[in-house]
Amino acid sequence: MYATYEYEGRRRVGRVEPRPDGDRLIPLTGLSELGRDTPGEVLASATELPGESVAAAEVYLCPVVPHPDKIVCVGLNYLAHVGESGRDLPTYPVLFTKFASSLIGPRDDIVLPPESAQVDYEAELAVVIGRAGRRIPRERAHEYILGYTVANDVTMRDYQYKTHQWLQGKSWDRSTPLGPYLLPPAEAEVTAARVRTVLGGKTVQDADTSLLIFDIPTLIATVSEFTTVLPGDVILTGTPGGVGFRRDPQLFLQDGDEITVEVEGIGALTNRVCRERT
Amino acid sequence: MYATYEYEGRRRVGRVEPRPDGDRLIPLTGLSELGRDTPGEVLASATELPGESVAAAEVYLCPVVPHPDKIVCVGLNYLAHVGESGRDLPTYPVLFTKFASSLIGPRDDIVLPPESAQVDYEAELAVVIGRAGRRIPRERAHEYILGYTVANDVTMRDYQYKTHQWLQGKSWDRSTPLGPYLLPPAEAEVTAARVRTVLGGKTVQDADTSLLIFDIPTLIATVSEFTTVLPGDVILTGTPGGVGFRRDPQLFLQDGDEITVEVEGIGALTNRVCRERT
Repeated sequence: MYATYEYEGRRRVGRVEPRPDGDRLIPLTGLSELGRDTPGEVLASATELPGESVAAAEVYLCPVVPHPDKIVCVGLNYLAHVGESGRDLPTYPVLFTKFASSLIGPRDDIVLPPESAQVDYEAELAVVIGRAGRRIPRERAHEYILGYTVANDVTMRDYQYKTHQWLQGKSWDRSTPLGPYLLPPAEAEVTAARVRTVLGGKTVQDADTSLLIFDIPTLIATVSEFTTVLPGDVILTGTPGGVGFRRDPQLFLQDGDEITVEVEGIGALTNRVCRERT
Repeated sequence: MYATYEYEGRRRVGRVEPRPDGDRLIPLTGLSELGRDTPGEVLASATELPGESVAAAEVYLCPVVPHPDKIVCVGLNYLAHVGESGRDLPTYPVLFTKFASSLIGPRDDIVLPPESAQVDYEAELAVVIGRAGRRIPRERAHEYILGYTVANDVTMRDYQYKTHQWLQGKSWDRSTPLGPYLLPPAEAEVTAARVRTVLGGKTVQDADTSLLIFDIPTLIATVSEFTTVLPGDVILTGTPGGVGFRRDPQLFLQDGDEITVEVEGIGALTNRVCRERT
């Protein structure tokens, strides 16, 4: 497990060492963040500095990849979520983007902008690319995965549906927690990982990744067909059913809420929700 | 007028000096490309190196902004183009993105990937941001413009319409010429500039920017509402009617074609079209 964190004014990449009294972060020489400059072989061969380790509770956790070159999101990729939205089953993944500026750290507040009255949650398994590639065959896609993490693909529904293209509902600055840690494939089991959202103590999304319509190798093959994926690129694999917009009554994030999205075995993001101070 | 160019292995920003025998480029000290590091005041105060000037014909012209943090494109922003696509007049601009890796230089070939049989053209006026801003009021938007340039928003229609989201039709690597030059607002008149595409000697798009549904200040206000615009960010303002996909018979780019997109007073992009060598 790895994290990008700030401590004493310095941004570093650390290996995460779980301990009974809380995780510790052991910094890696010469790495300031997970991303473009940390392909798989760099991360695997980095030297640890155990003398500079620190409790994870004492640091600021950054978005686990703070500045991805690209974030490609997949819509409607769980059977149940497709059902609730009333669309047909897709034959090609629904792809859209977020900007890197949309990301926030795993413990940051989710901020409600005054312009939107429909800020919604979406629990997602995120895949981080570890090696540049184009036109990657599905059967070799696993070689391009640096690891897995968790995202809450926070979405302003009233903006998402202003037109038929979703960008302005998906790309609000500082809206999307990503983290807390990156789990390399050897430490992660994602073929049937439970994906859950708990809002105010109530479970509102609950599915597992075996229900993905387009699996991770297919997503990597599909995206890399038209663009070169780079180390640090993030693919959000889509959210299951239960989003607030499709509930009856609808359910949106409110000032003071606490929300947790969790992917079993990968991690959990718990964020407070607060009104933007403008 | 400014250009980003490469000459003798070095990337530079140059002021463009038009001459009867061809444009010359006068490099600016310390600037390697137009973009994030060239806000308006940096560009305006840069020192010229006239002793190192070079004929534009002798250099490689890069995409005028080679690595924008964001490229936001506007769809269906001319009345005639909305009409041909059979959609209602939008009340909010249709926004989507390209990746920076989609850009090519103004003289580069447009490469037809073997996967697409419907590579189409879209002549567009492009706006480059010169100053960071969020929630920019429409009436102050002009303060955030570094200048204007031209784009051919090359689109793989068969990919664009694979789902209701357009990303995979708009973001092919190395598909989209941007340039040739950046014209600061003082040198540009864009309120009624003719926008044309000539393919194989035949004019296939012909409109002017007075027909934009959402004008440039509105676009800057709209985009900056949800995300901070940065120096070098590019907004493609949309294409007029006449795209190949909507013609009868349809008209797509073919190996050996030559295509010119031109915005009156801003510049022209002439590119050869060739099959990708894979």
